[in-house]
Amino acid sequence: MPIITLLTDFGVSDSYVGEVKGVLLTRAPNATLVDISHEVHPGDIRAASYILGRTWKLFPPGTVHFVVVDPGVGTERGALAVKTGGHFFVGPDNGVFSLVLGPGPVAAVVLSVPLGSSTTFHGRDVFAAAAGSLATSGWSSRLGVSMSRDLQRLSLPTPKKNKQGTVEGEVIYVDRFGNLITNLESQHLQSGASLWIGGVKIDAVQKTFGQVSRGQVLAYFGSGGTLEIAVRDGSAAQRLSAGVGTHVRIERAR
Amino acid sequence: MPIITLLTDFGVSDSYVGEVKGVLLTRAPNATLVDISHEVHPGDIRAASYILGRTWKLFPPGTVHFVVVDPGVGTERGALAVKTGGHFFVGPDNGVFSLVLGPGPVAAVVLSVPLGSSTTFHGRDVFAAAAGSLATSGWSSRLGVSMSRDLQRLSLPTPKKNKQGTVEGEVIYVDRFGNLITNLESQHLQSGASLWIGGVKIDAVQKTFGQVSRGQVLAYFGSGGTLEIAVRDGSAAQRLSAGVGTHVRIERAR
Amino acid sequence: MPIITLLTDFGVSDSYVGEVKGVLLTRAPNATLVDISHEVHPGDIRAASYILGRTWKLFPPGTVHFVVVDPGVGTERGALAVKTGGHFFVGPDNGVFSLVLGPGPVAAVVLSVPLGSSTTFHGRDVFAAAAGSLATSGWSSRLGVSMSRDLQRLSLPTPKKNKQGTVEGEVIYVDRFGNLITNLESQHLQSGASLWIGGVKIDAVQKTFGQVSRGQVLAYFGSGGTLEIAVRDGSAAQRLSAGVGTHVRIERAR
Repeated sequence: MPIITLLTDFGVSDSYVGEVKGVLLTRAPNATLVDISHEVHPGDIRAASYILGRTWKLFPPGTVHFVVVDPGVGTERGALAVKTGGHFFVGPDNGVFSLVLGPGPVAAVVLSVPLGSSTTFHGRDVFAAAAGSLATSGWSSRLGVSMSRDLQRLSLPTPKKNKQGTVEGEVIYVDRFGNLITNLESQHLQSGASLWIGGVKIDAVQKTFGQVSRGQVLAYFGSGGTLEIAVRDGSAAQRLSAGVGTHVRIERAR
Repeated sequence: MPIITLLTDFGVSDSYVGEVKGVLLTRAPNATLVDISHEVHPGDIRAASYILGRTWKLFPPGTVHFVVVDPGVGTERGALAVKTGGHFFVGPDNGVFSLVLGPGPVAAVVLSVPLGSSTTFHGRDVFAAAAGSLATSGWSSRLGVSMSRDLQRLSLPTPKKNKQGTVEGEVIYVDRFGNLITNLESQHLQSGASLWIGGVKIDAVQKTFGQVSRGQVLAYFGSGGTLEIAVRDGSAAQRLSAGVGTHVRIERAR
Repeated sequence: MPIITLLTDFGVSDSYVGEVKGVLLTRAPNATLVDISHEVHPGDIRAASYILGRTWKLFPPGTVHFVVVDPGVGTERGALAVKTGGHFFVGPDNGVFSLVLGPGPVAAVVLSVPLGSSTTFHGRDVFAAAAGSLATSGWSSRLGVSMSRDLQRLSLPTPKKNKQGTVEGEVIYVDRFGNLITNLESQHLQSGASLWIGGVKIDAVQKTFGQVSRGQVLAYFGSGGTLEIAVRDGSAAQRLSAGVGTHVRIERAR
């Protein structure tokens, strides 16, 4: 049975997700629909790209990923179907696929907008139809017009190392627990180095929450592979008044 | 595989939705369960009827729609199974099916309440059993007692036109983005007419959000077919202090 | 088709639930995934045990229940697979299974943590793999090391009766409506007895909400089988400033 995952900023209190699911199951009656999240902050393409980057590869090859965070709906931004890494993707050409696009080959088409489509809900009228078609019939050049330019990519921050050996990274995502996920990797943290966020020094990198007392700040390499800063049984975002973009610094041992 | 959609005000933080799904999958092991929403404001029959009105037709014929927003649970209000338009519905007789009932034929039965049922959770003890039976065996007069009176219908507001040609409509739904969905249709908006909400004039009807600047108010014909008022990348409900029932006026060009 | 239910405190705004579902569907492609809730308050093992206690038995035998509310992730607490009552369970050994464990036989193994597992996300790296294996292949002693000690159980409050015949119970769960679910059962409430919460006397035990006026406080035996205190179309938690642990007293008729 084909799998279709759904990642949107539609919320779950209105009819929008239900309308999309109706179209998907009409087009692909045997599909297994999997909600990834509909609670992306409205229009937050970067958060959606991060969530997609963590989830897509964990599904079986052939999965169709419906990714609609689309503040530019109805404008000239392309509506895409993309094939890469053995998976299929549909969504707007606004950078939301940035963390899917690797060195491997990418096929992409611009979907046409059917006559009578809503100008504000391409999720239902453009992307759901394409996702249903991909789920039942797989990739076809007839899905749309071959993409003649590069796909949009977000300009994502990368850690910077200065002459003194200090590495400057930043928080790239904050989760529901208030954990601060950074772009710093284990290669950046040499033995004896110290970790700073704002003016606060984080004493040590731990393995997991239970190694510190309740309410204490800790750092660890998280399940996404990068350094995270958290408060045990609390919110690091609140405690440290930090969010996406907050700088995190690793200073070399002297 | 039969499809059962679920639309409730149960929320998703408690056991209630899980209990219903357990009963549904026990009765109809092959069913595909589709969450429409469980975040209807508690007891808001009108919002539920609006969401149902937008979603049900997009599912394949034969779909069972479990619609339980039921502030009168356990009282004398009927517990219904309804067949119309090739779809099945279960839920209380409180008007929640108002936007499903059209000119076509409607079959309806009053479900009996099994001995030992909870008096406060007919979703689990009455409606889920009926939905499971509909999903596996289809319509049967043995589901309950044939309905001898008309189904309850909500008295929904309709636009009114006065002698000067002014059309008075209102906001009928506010979505998670703060978009104001009105009951005004394209026929009401003649060329050169002006649109007012409260004391605020909306300059022009646009095609989509991207045609105005961020933070600007706009109007457009939305994905539900009626006029909507929104703020690009913002909330019109907040900006205009508007909600369900707020009047929206179209004045004829002079 | 095997059923896997999911009960967590992961929330639905991040990638975590999606990552788990990807692993589950990779391991068990035919599984039906059923979200019970992901909105357990972070680390609230007691609320999770209550929700699990109400839901698990309503699913068909053979269902796999993925229950991950795991503030001790990565510490020495065991990661369990459990078989009892014809159902399978995976989750941490922290008491979350307290209301599943009855007098019947229980098989339990401690899951091993695969090399390279995240120290903070055993839901994905330990429990999802085990749940997928249970869904496709059923119980096997090869899932882990047989459990050599008793499973953790929460010390849950039970009603106490004093010499004057007064029964002291308490609120054990508050639902999204603000309904106060107590641990008092019908045996505790004899004819003519009076019910008190804080200094407030509840006049009578009703059958359902509709028997009192809007905004009035009522008590009734709820869908979980115990006494509940609610406000019709309102929140008893707010009205009575009550929550989990608030005492509820039944005084014998004089």
